[in-house]
Amino acid sequence: MALQPSKIIETFPNPHPNNTYTIQFSTAEFTTLCPLTGQPDFATLTVEYSPLEWCLESKSIKQFLWSFRDEGHFHEDVTNQILNAMVTACAPRWMTVTGHFNIRGGIDFVITAKYSAK
Amino acid sequence: MALQPSKIIETFPNPHPNNTYTIQFSTAEFTTLCPLTGQPDFATLTVEYSPLEWCLESKSIKQFLWSFRDEGHFHEDVTNQILNAMVTACAPRWMTVTGHFNIRGGIDFVITAKYSAK
Amino acid sequence: MALQPSKIIETFPNPHPNNTYTIQFSTAEFTTLCPLTGQPDFATLTVEYSPLEWCLESKSIKQFLWSFRDEGHFHEDVTNQILNAMVTACAPRWMTVTGHFNIRGGIDFVITAKYSAK
Amino acid sequence: MALQPSKIIETFPNPHPNNTYTIQFSTAEFTTLCPLTGQPDFATLTVEYSPLEWCLESKSIKQFLWSFRDEGHFHEDVTNQILNAMVTACAPRWMTVTGHFNIRGGIDFVITAKYSAK
Amino acid sequence: MALQPSKIIETFPNPHPNNTYTIQFSTAEFTTLCPLTGQPDFATLTVEYSPLEWCLESKSIKQFLWSFRDEGHFHEDVTNQILNAMVTACAPRWMTVTGHFNIRGGIDFVITAKYSAK
Amino acid sequence: MALQPSKIIETFPNPHPNNTYTIQFSTAEFTTLCPLTGQPDFATLTVEYSPLEWCLESKSIKQFLWSFRDEGHFHEDVTNQILNAMVTACAPRWMTVTGHFNIRGGIDFVITAKYSAK
Amino acid sequence: MALQPSKIIETFPNPHPNNTYTIQFSTAEFTTLCPLTGQPDFATLTVEYSPLEWCLESKSIKQFLWSFRDEGHFHEDVTNQILNAMVTACAPRWMTVTGHFNIRGGIDFVITAKYSAK
Amino acid sequence: MALQPSKIIETFPNPHPNNTYTIQFSTAEFTTLCPLTGQPDFATLTVEYSPLEWCLESKSIKQFLWSFRDEGHFHEDVTNQILNAMVTACAPRWMTVTGHFNIRGGIDFVITAKYSAK
Amino acid sequence: MALQPSKIIETFPNPHPNNTYTIQFSTAEFTTLCPLTGQPDFATLTVEYSPLEWCLESKSIKQFLWSFRDEGHFHEDVTNQILNAMVTACAPRWMTVTGHFNIRGGIDFVITAKYSAK
Amino acid sequence: MALQPSKIIETFPNPHPNNTYTIQFSTAEFTTLCPLTGQPDFATLTVEYSPLEWCLESKSIKQFLWSFRDEGHFHEDVTNQILNAMVTACAPRWMTVTGHFNIRGGIDFVITAKYSAK
Repeated sequence: MALQPSKIIETFPNPHPNNTYTIQFSTAEFTTLCPLTGQPDFATLTVEYSPLEWCLESKSIKQFLWSFRDEGHFHEDVTNQILNAMVTACAPRWMTVTGHFNIRGGIDFVITAKYSAK
Repeated sequence: MALQPSKIIETFPNPHPNNTYTIQFSTAEFTTLCPLTGQPDFATLTVEYSPLEWCLESKSIKQFLWSFRDEGHFHEDVTNQILNAMVTACAPRWMTVTGHFNIRGGIDFVITAKYSAK
Repeated sequence: MALQPSKIIETFPNPHPNNTYTIQFSTAEFTTLCPLTGQPDFATLTVEYSPLEWCLESKSIKQFLWSFRDEGHFHEDVTNQILNAMVTACAPRWMTVTGHFNIRGGIDFVITAKYSAK
Repeated sequence: MALQPSKIIETFPNPHPNNTYTIQFSTAEFTTLCPLTGQPDFATLTVEYSPLEWCLESKSIKQFLWSFRDEGHFHEDVTNQILNAMVTACAPRWMTVTGHFNIRGGIDFVITAKYSAK
Repeated sequence: MALQPSKIIETFPNPHPNNTYTIQFSTAEFTTLCPLTGQPDFATLTVEYSPLEWCLESKSIKQFLWSFRDEGHFHEDVTNQILNAMVTACAPRWMTVTGHFNIRGGIDFVITAKYSAK
Repeated sequence: MALQPSKIIETFPNPHPNNTYTIQFSTAEFTTLCPLTGQPDFATLTVEYSPLEWCLESKSIKQFLWSFRDEGHFHEDVTNQILNAMVTACAPRWMTVTGHFNIRGGIDFVITAKYSAK
Repeated sequence: MALQPSKIIETFPNPHPNNTYTIQFSTAEFTTLCPLTGQPDFATLTVEYSPLEWCLESKSIKQFLWSFRDEGHFHEDVTNQILNAMVTACAPRWMTVTGHFNIRGGIDFVITAKYSAK
Repeated sequence: MALQPSKIIETFPNPHPNNTYTIQFSTAEFTTLCPLTGQPDFATLTVEYSPLEWCLESKSIKQFLWSFRDEGHFHEDVTNQILNAMVTACAPRWMTVTGHFNIRGGIDFVITAKYSAK
Repeated sequence: MALQPSKIIETFPNPHPNNTYTIQFSTAEFTTLCPLTGQPDFATLTVEYSPLEWCLESKSIKQFLWSFRDEGHFHEDVTNQILNAMVTACAPRWMTVTGHFNIRGGIDFVITAKYSAK
Repeated sequence: MALQPSKIIETFPNPHPNNTYTIQFSTAEFTTLCPLTGQPDFATLTVEYSPLEWCLESKSIKQFLWSFRDEGHFHEDVTNQILNAMVTACAPRWMTVTGHFNIRGGIDFVITAKYSAK
């Protein structure tokens, strides 16, 4: 069945719960709309986390990030929303989400949001 | 008034018709949908042309490229469609449109379509 | 209404005050005048901060940096002035302002000014 | 149905036969075996061509290149074989196939094979 | 005396009129205003020419490019204006002026204007 | 005798057990199959460790990494498997294994697994 | 009056003594003579410091570095001499001077000398 | 049997004599001795040719380039010697040999020797 | 005996007069004085030529370029002077001298002077 | 007298024993032989140390590294041997030797050996 944009983030059991390790994934293909002008915004999005019991499933990651394509979002807000949703989904040791938004008006923005279980 | 996606490409009179010169513009923010799977595709699009009587207006370029965001297009087809529409709009000496489409299945594609007024 | 250079820095309420995160923005388009010779100086300016209650509004950032275009400023002074003004505007956890000034007489300068709330 | 390695290269009708244009695709994921030692070889493979009536279909390209994974091939031979097979499949105006093979014994090889319809 | 912005381009006699050679100069510090919005635009400007009897004097080049700082100009127009003024000043064999204007609305522009004495 | 893929990792006695030092090796030629689709995956694999009594033998490293070529493995799992096997083989002070997997669906993954003897 | 090489380093009062900040300057145009062979040596010189009451004046920096042009100096010695002279001139919190000397006999040298007020 | 340095260059029959193609190989590991001082020299050596009936065998290339390790050679001479020997060995359509010799006394040298069958 | 700056350029007989080849050498260590201000100028100098009967000797090249260190020269003039002197010394098929002079006042200059025997 | 390969490392008295500083040198021209096959190996070697009473003399460094050219050495062993010999020669505060060995069999190795006086 064809992939669809989705707000649901699927997970799978951490295959090596006795190892401490990190998972980082990155895409240059994140796009939303500006909530003020409706014009498209573009960013490179990077997520890094250390799994405890659950890992984020990769097809599901793609569908979740796709779900922002037709929505209006401010840079600071959407980066933190993604962090909060992914932390809720997989309950990691820690997670960092970085959104590097393309130049607008000669200025680019990088938002870096962090979660720690402790 | 807010910008909108638009299939109309506006032009303005070439301010230096007695000079021979080229205009190149490029954006890393071109996106369409795959006509088979509906999933987003992304490309860097570059256009270079030598104007005769008309130049392409920059806000209009942005709106025209935006108009492909929610449409399904094959790489080869959309690159040539953009060439044909821009040539029709400004009747240049010559024009080249290059679409560098992001990696899918480990393979990236670069389509380069050229027009010459002869 | 058209944007104007402005010494006023506008803010908006931090949309995720319960998250600890950083905001970095950067522009390669900062220019002032040399206070000794009147000749233009150019710099890449980068600001990074961790917001508490307020975030810096992006259009306002652009107008504020623009306001230095016709003023005479020494490198060390203007970098610290920008830090002080932005800290006053948004009262962050911490902030760093870096000005990387273009080569003059074979030498380039990088000024890095830091503020911490503690 | 799952993709399989395949020696068949599928094509589709050139959507813009009245335009002269080029199609380039590239993958960093080409691998064969050394026919002397049986050890894996790796290459970046780039194909560029100008279509006449037919274009190479992208899933089929992936399956065709995959079909060399478990076969023994010399660099010079396999690059020319790929050219010959792709030319037979789509009968282009011209085609260039470049294989950039990874360093072995401190030396890397780049084989560039060209076909022209005239 | 302090340098000033100036529309006058000074020259000096070609010290090697019997040699055929080219002079290229480039600055990342060209700035004008947008004639529609009044906001600053920035470009990297490159000039290359082959002198006949006269060469462009370097301090004068700086003052001439500086003279556009507070004026409103479209990209296509200003690049050709600079070409025309410099050709008038030094009557070269040929000259090329390239303006690479910074990203606005996700799109950057490169204007390349050429003059040839023949 | 020709090299073969092998799950056995050979070692040799640390030639400088009184020195504290690290050994890092890296290959851009790691390939496995996707366990869901059977399609090839590719990664750059980097291993860094501090030896105690034993060092990993380089030909054996090549054969061990080769042994994954025809097996199906998830990114998170295979990176940790490699760490566990190499730690078992040489009992180092500490070891880090990093797998940087090529882009699939617009997203690349970097898995970093760490072991420490303490 | 024309600039001259000079062993005197001029300073100006720190305009923001209540801020903690750093000043870094760098030049690719440092040259001395080899004290053994008399042949020219070249280096990229970088200085970073945190000012207390005084800042180093930029024209004076240029003249001071110029003063080594016709003198014979070993790499290790001249880098430390520059540190000592600049520390004496401005009494900073801390200062680092790095000299990256061009390749001689296939080997390049980087000398990094540090001062701390505590 | 172990490889040895050798002045003999082995060839194999061109597997695709009906195709026109080029073979380029490159090594960053070419070293000779300076004939004046006996000190080692180092170069990156690149060979490109279009085969007619014979191709250069890759192990033999390695042994041939190795044979210069303990010999004294001037840059201009050895680059042309390599061209002449390889042309004699495989009688190509054309061949280019480029030696990029590492910096000595602040100057690097690139020698490019070409042969054409016509 | 120690090397000295020298206006004499020594040559040696072309060791392969029957081959057509080019010799390129480059240094990042060319420095002169500005004839107006007396301040040091710096350039990367590249020379490429095709020898007929004579080649330029490398130690002599170093001494010749060194001889400009304490002399005042304009960029356009000194680049052509070097071309003329080297052409006189070795009478090549053709020669190109390129001087890439470091940024002054925000502008860098590249002078490219060419000689051809025909 | 001509330089020769030598196992003796000469030193000179630290000219600034009251300053704490580091000396780093690096060469891309380190070569040995593989002790198993006799074939040449190549590495970039970097040494960094903080001198106490003695500094390593640069011509002597060149001769010492040259002395490994005709000897067979394993990567791990030779990097530690160089550390031990240089520490013995100059008794530094601390020293790090890094050997980055070129790709063999698709894998490169970086050995980093450290010494500390405490």
